Amino acid sequence: MNLRTDLAVERHELVGSGDIDGVELNKYDDGGVTVTQIRVLNENGSRSLGKPKGTYITVDVTPFSKASDLFSHQLTVLAKNIKKLLPEGSGTVLVAGLGNKSITSDALGPMAAELIFSTRHIGAELRKSIGMENIRSVAGIVPGVLGKTGIETGEIIESVVKKIQPCAVIAIDALASRRLERLGTTVQMASSGVVPGSGVGNARSRIDEQTLGVPVISIGVPTVVDAATLASDLIEQAGYASDAAAFQKLLKPIGEQIMVTPKEIDLMIERASQLVAMGINCALQPELDPKDILAIVS
Amino acid sequence: MNLRTDLAVERHELVGSGDIDGVELNKYDDGGVTVTQIRVLNENGSRSLGKPKGTYITVDVTPFSKASDLFSHQLTVLAKNIKKLLPEGSGTVLVAGLGNKSITSDALGPMAAELIFSTRHIGAELRKSIGMENIRSVAGIVPGVLGKTGIETGEIIESVVKKIQPCAVIAIDALASRRLERLGTTVQMASSGVVPGSGVGNARSRIDEQTLGVPVISIGVPTVVDAATLASDLIEQAGYASDAAAFQKLLKPIGEQIMVTPKEIDLMIERASQLVAMGINCALQPELDPKDILAIVS
Amino acid sequence: MNLRTDLAVERHELVGSGDIDGVELNKYDDGGVTVTQIRVLNENGSRSLGKPKGTYITVDVTPFSKASDLFSHQLTVLAKNIKKLLPEGSGTVLVAGLGNKSITSDALGPMAAELIFSTRHIGAELRKSIGMENIRSVAGIVPGVLGKTGIETGEIIESVVKKIQPCAVIAIDALASRRLERLGTTVQMASSGVVPGSGVGNARSRIDEQTLGVPVISIGVPTVVDAATLASDLIEQAGYASDAAAFQKLLKPIGEQIMVTPKEIDLMIERASQLVAMGINCALQPELDPKDILAIVS
Amino acid sequence: MNLRTDLAVERHELVGSGDIDGVELNKYDDGGVTVTQIRVLNENGSRSLGKPKGTYITVDVTPFSKASDLFSHQLTVLAKNIKKLLPEGSGTVLVAGLGNKSITSDALGPMAAELIFSTRHIGAELRKSIGMENIRSVAGIVPGVLGKTGIETGEIIESVVKKIQPCAVIAIDALASRRLERLGTTVQMASSGVVPGSGVGNARSRIDEQTLGVPVISIGVPTVVDAATLASDLIEQAGYASDAAAFQKLLKPIGEQIMVTPKEIDLMIERASQLVAMGINCALQPELDPKDILAIVS
Repeated sequence: MNLRTDLAVERHELVGSGDIDGVELNKYDDGGVTVTQIRVLNENGSRSLGKPKGTYITVDVTPFSKASDLFSHQLTVLAKNIKKLLPEGSGTVLVAGLGNKSITSDALGPMAAELIFSTRHIGAELRKSIGMENIRSVAGIVPGVLGKTGIETGEIIESVVKKIQPCAVIAIDALASRRLERLGTTVQMASSGVVPGSGVGNARSRIDEQTLGVPVISIGVPTVVDAATLASDLIEQAGYASDAAAFQKLLKPIGEQIMVTPKEIDLMIERASQLVAMGINCALQPELDPKDILAIVS
Repeated sequence: MNLRTDLAVERHELVGSGDIDGVELNKYDDGGVTVTQIRVLNENGSRSLGKPKGTYITVDVTPFSKASDLFSHQLTVLAKNIKKLLPEGSGTVLVAGLGNKSITSDALGPMAAELIFSTRHIGAELRKSIGMENIRSVAGIVPGVLGKTGIETGEIIESVVKKIQPCAVIAIDALASRRLERLGTTVQMASSGVVPGSGVGNARSRIDEQTLGVPVISIGVPTVVDAATLASDLIEQAGYASDAAAFQKLLKPIGEQIMVTPKEIDLMIERASQLVAMGINCALQPELDPKDILAIVS
Repeated sequence: MNLRTDLAVERHELVGSGDIDGVELNKYDDGGVTVTQIRVLNENGSRSLGKPKGTYITVDVTPFSKASDLFSHQLTVLAKNIKKLLPEGSGTVLVAGLGNKSITSDALGPMAAELIFSTRHIGAELRKSIGMENIRSVAGIVPGVLGKTGIETGEIIESVVKKIQPCAVIAIDALASRRLERLGTTVQMASSGVVPGSGVGNARSRIDEQTLGVPVISIGVPTVVDAATLASDLIEQAGYASDAAAFQKLLKPIGEQIMVTPKEIDLMIERASQLVAMGINCALQPELDPKDILAIVS
Repeated sequence: MNLRTDLAVERHELVGSGDIDGVELNKYDDGGVTVTQIRVLNENGSRSLGKPKGTYITVDVTPFSKASDLFSHQLTVLAKNIKKLLPEGSGTVLVAGLGNKSITSDALGPMAAELIFSTRHIGAELRKSIGMENIRSVAGIVPGVLGKTGIETGEIIESVVKKIQPCAVIAIDALASRRLERLGTTVQMASSGVVPGSGVGNARSRIDEQTLGVPVISIGVPTVVDAATLASDLIEQAGYASDAAAFQKLLKPIGEQIMVTPKEIDLMIERASQLVAMGINCALQPELDPKDILAIVS
């Protein structure tokens, strides 16, 4: 069974409903917002789920969240869970917006990075004069994609990490899901780093604590689903779970290379970028009012 | 059988491989470019195909046609077939770019309209001084969508037709296909007018010769496919044609409202808009060099 | 003295500080917001000011108003003054966004029109179900520019007015100012209609009550200044008023055709469009919360 | 005399018409294209011109060069002069597009970088299979601006240079001119590096061979002019050179912080970006057909 998905929660569903050795799942309600935390504890769990060791937190958000929904409880839940994954301390955090801004479904990273409140360059005096003595140092980059730059995303991030010595990297990237209804409605945060381009079918080498020397938190929202997965998933939803598996196998060679996205992708990406960016901003600057941050970055 | 498609050629496939009363199909090669002309001759044919009487011409184009492919033979074929559908004479032609420019998959009409060479306002003297005495009078509008304007697309076009009295209207709109591989690779031209929004699931009242009083040629490129159609189509391609029909029925309630589009939709729409606009420009200004027209409009 | 400006308040300054026959000026503070109302009462006043008879209201707004400033008292002042210029009654209002969306300094109209809450198509039942029984009927169009469409802006508006029979037209357009510091900081509303393209140097025939048969309220923000006017204006500000007049004459042939705009024009237009659109929305839907309207249109 | 300009050729004009010690000027016609080469030879010349030692080449290009003008002789002249400034050898060249892509007048660098043909990642086998064995290794980055990223442009470029070890850096940036007519009509190439943001008034520390360890060629096009400079320049053009100097002093405090740009800035930047990018592409890949390169990158 090799359905195309970047979501730990979907991998878990695929393995089955029972307990999995080396994997811990904890699903709970936080003030009306559903949170699922999966911990991959060892090699065994990693093999079963096809995901590296680490913590994967999924927060369900309102679909195509209206501008008016931005400052609701789900933002607090996002910020709280991002904070959980960040290391202790108050060093600089480098936020990297991965993906290709010219392809709407892959533009989550670059668009969210535009809305990150970067503060590393604001000197002590200026901080004082604007009443922000305690803001945390944050830097943000948009490394671009290999096909455009000729440089691996990981190479650029590694270079900048060496230069500015952050205590952690947050990498934002679009993901692939196996279910249409998860597109734009799920935020996954993970402690295990990121493989740039995996969501859109051009996987590059992993960017994680091992390669960078500092913790790498990945944050993503599923924006695409592959056509074969979509078909077998619809078949399963129609009540033919057994056929779904059979058809999935049949359809693989046809539909695998074709990633599809909802026709309202433009609005979905705009809203998702805003939500992810504000979740990070609130996690990093807990003393500031979210609305003030939004006014600064937009 | 109720697969979601705006293409006459797909409707024809669905009805079967034999002859259909009241329908004439003629598929041929034009210098390496495949052209399919379907004529719906009477009510009987109209019922069988679920399309109004008229001529439907489909031209297969290279997928995601490269900028370098723009001036190849397929452009000549497009222009030639658009000319076939236009009435005799040399009156003003009004080109209307239908659809919502904020949704990439629906932006074909507005984007192509931007590249139409409008000439109606160029006076005789100016025409002479720029060496274009014989250019045809062309006007172009982008009426917007009902949800944004509060006015039916048909109302706006009808108003402008009354004012400027064109001899024909060309309406450009994004279409729905039942096959992923047709997205961005097929141009359909038809003499039977257009129903705004039908491709994206919000059909409004028909814009045609009956409602406007002048011939209405529609030109479109499929950009979306509904999820249920996609699934059953993949199943059929996998060699399970009979199951496809069954699953199509099963999936309808789930997938019908969900239109999907390829993840490379941005590039696809950009290239398709350019091809459609240049096809129209060349059909209307046969004496000008296509490259000169492109330099004027871009 | 022929300085290039679309602002009645600047024309008035140029004529001098004394009383002008046929012109009434009333400048006052409305809760911290400066409002200047000029009434051109007769032919004499019209000749002196070089503006048609009518009421011209100028509201000074915060420069590059922050997103956070959008819902301040200046929005209330804008809405109140737009209402003053609208005819009594509750008929449909047609809002037209004039100008060329591809030239940032001329894109005020099209960008503001995108944010107008159009309601004409919302039926009685739907209004009831969304709790908006009493919303006013509003329609919005973006007619484009003659060079792109081949159709005069006035022709398109006239056509649509005939079809949908509004009780008034509101035309939004970018303006020219003689002072750099007015760019983006002044909103002018007038009862005398609009000449499309006058702000950017391609004046077309007037769109007003005489040509359309219904009142035409124009709303604009200055976004450009001509280079000669800018130079003489700076000279005057430097304390050399007499030289300014002399230099203005000298510079005219050089600088007249060159309109300049601040380098931050992108942000200025974005903010000004939002302010103007929300001013109109609030004037037309006084029962709705401005923040709810913004959430609907954005 | 402290007029705001980034062009060596304008600095030279300001110093006067005679010979300047330590400065060599050579103006010539290359097939109808005017080229001016200024060499700043020593400290004395550097002080006189207010520019670091190095070679500054200015090529005059057609204003708002039409798409149809892109492949004319001026492209050959640009490529030839860029080659002159590049070091011998065939190592990787890193092209950096400086500036803020959200401010049109500052977007030259990011927009041109989008059109650079990056090849560093194309392996030997792929090169062979596409018939491009001999292409030079090129990488391209868009470092963003300090206010958005929290990281100095120079820090990012330095980091990437350390990682990928190019033999030279080409930095593209928008410039300031003292003359309106130079906006969009001049390309300056220099061997002395670049100060990010100098054109738009936020100068940062220099990026040059001394700071990076490899030659830094800067390429720019003037896109803005400061208001005071514009005014005194118009006065001078009107034949009042002596007053110009006086007024320049008077106007400085008023107009210095205000940079203006032509209202057609959108089109100007689009065309200038394309010209600069293609000039670089042709200089780096002399064996490829320019039209083939454009088809690859666009």
